[in-house]
Amino acid sequence: MLNRPSREAPETAAGAAPLRLADPASAQLSVLDLAATRGDGIFESISLINGIPHAIEAHLARFMTSARLLDLPEPDLGTWRDAIELARTTMDDQPEASIKAVMSRGIEGGDCPTGWVFAAPTPDFSDVRTAGVRVVLLDRGYRHNVDTTSPWLLTGAKTLSYALNRAALREAHRRDADDVVFVSSDGFALEGPTSSLIVLHGAMLLTPGAPGGAGLGILEGTTQGDIFGWASGVGLATQSRLVSVDDLTGSDAAWLVSSSRHAVPIRAIDGRPHPVDAVITERINTFLLTRTS
Amino acid sequence: MLNRPSREAPETAAGAAPLRLADPASAQLSVLDLAATRGDGIFESISLINGIPHAIEAHLARFMTSARLLDLPEPDLGTWRDAIELARTTMDDQPEASIKAVMSRGIEGGDCPTGWVFAAPTPDFSDVRTAGVRVVLLDRGYRHNVDTTSPWLLTGAKTLSYALNRAALREAHRRDADDVVFVSSDGFALEGPTSSLIVLHGAMLLTPGAPGGAGLGILEGTTQGDIFGWASGVGLATQSRLVSVDDLTGSDAAWLVSSSRHAVPIRAIDGRPHPVDAVITERINTFLLTRTS
Repeated sequence: MLNRPSREAPETAAGAAPLRLADPASAQLSVLDLAATRGDGIFESISLINGIPHAIEAHLARFMTSARLLDLPEPDLGTWRDAIELARTTMDDQPEASIKAVMSRGIEGGDCPTGWVFAAPTPDFSDVRTAGVRVVLLDRGYRHNVDTTSPWLLTGAKTLSYALNRAALREAHRRDADDVVFVSSDGFALEGPTSSLIVLHGAMLLTPGAPGGAGLGILEGTTQGDIFGWASGVGLATQSRLVSVDDLTGSDAAWLVSSSRHAVPIRAIDGRPHPVDAVITERINTFLLTRTS
Repeated sequence: MLNRPSREAPETAAGAAPLRLADPASAQLSVLDLAATRGDGIFESISLINGIPHAIEAHLARFMTSARLLDLPEPDLGTWRDAIELARTTMDDQPEASIKAVMSRGIEGGDCPTGWVFAAPTPDFSDVRTAGVRVVLLDRGYRHNVDTTSPWLLTGAKTLSYALNRAALREAHRRDADDVVFVSSDGFALEGPTSSLIVLHGAMLLTPGAPGGAGLGILEGTTQGDIFGWASGVGLATQSRLVSVDDLTGSDAAWLVSSSRHAVPIRAIDGRPHPVDAVITERINTFLLTRTS
């Protein structure tokens, strides 16, 4: 999301200092900020297509959930909306961009969170949206029901402590793959390091979810949610349930979906070719690129 | 470690820019730094007593190990030693201080790590070193042998992705306790969020360790290492092995040990009183406070 820094980005201390635009390449943060010393904060990445921010209500709702799971002060959504709008105006000339909203617990020992919003053009993902990715299955180490037994592990929150997600991607590259599907220690497919998983069986789209809606210790996907909302209108059934590794490897097609890269088909799993449904892939990405909200 | 910021701290981009002193309360980091956006980096906290940095070789060795586990560039130890020495000179008038060395992967998309060293006086821990702490046992969610099966989880590295360690401490406070002992999903005691665990059985000190030295997905404790080195000279045997929850709850005494707080006796586990050995506690802390290296 930060690959190509924009020249300007608005910055705000949520609900406190007034919004101001700043050069993101210049120093803006203290080395005492808990974002930098403990990964102690939360974020959202919102896609912007032809100037329209997508799934913004779902992103803000998840931002609030993440804040609650981390016992952070409740984000002042009015301020965040203003900051996101200010950032949006700097990307007016970009066909695809992304806006990242970040809130940390602030300076250690203080009582004021730090907040900023960062906007940048999105890299060109058009090739990978067609060609797809090769994934490896990596054990995330946790049982599938970890968020009901151990909420302090923060598995359902989108935190700044992402070192292991990045390590998993490096492991994928070492194995000559492009991306990762995390698997629970008891054998259920979960999500990618920065994406949700959708699999196709017949005319049914499935995404990992726990029985009773308890959660699987994975993030509620904003893009996955939009795709499921669209699918019901085009004759595809949808279901959120436990997805075993066999459900994934035996599927008719599978995608990793995320805000900026959209839907990328999985074309290999642990070195074995996996079927790609080019027609549905194209229909999903056309929908994602032409949403009006 | 950062509770009371010093007025000045040296900062360095490891092996690149020259060392310079900077006010840590002023902005020094870009919001694009992967320390702040992904917790993607490593750190060490080194105690400084009457101007003497302790266990510095063990800290630098662990820093190198963490860098390797995260596929970071190898730290230039000469530069880090110089930066630590410069930070040390700012704490000359402090009886106890700590020096934190931090290295991140740098700006996303760049190829130069960011490094800084931060020095601050240590809060007064003399009371807790005697009175001890009440701990709760919290499941860390991983099996005890996770670092042999899933190295991408980075369990043996001291990373900046510490949000869950801080969440675990908040959970302890909610349960009217002061600290945490993490337990593996298969029932072995591991470590605290910012400390190592030592338990006493008769005249034997035990610390959690895996058979064959494979590691338990926990950090190799620099303070625990110093205590074990000292213990053999005062008639206490030492052993690193699997420590079950029963080994902990049935012990004659137990401590959480760390660089700045030193050895604090565990005086309650999940609400039940636990025996404190005041004599050994005092001997350990006297040793830690009077080390000459």
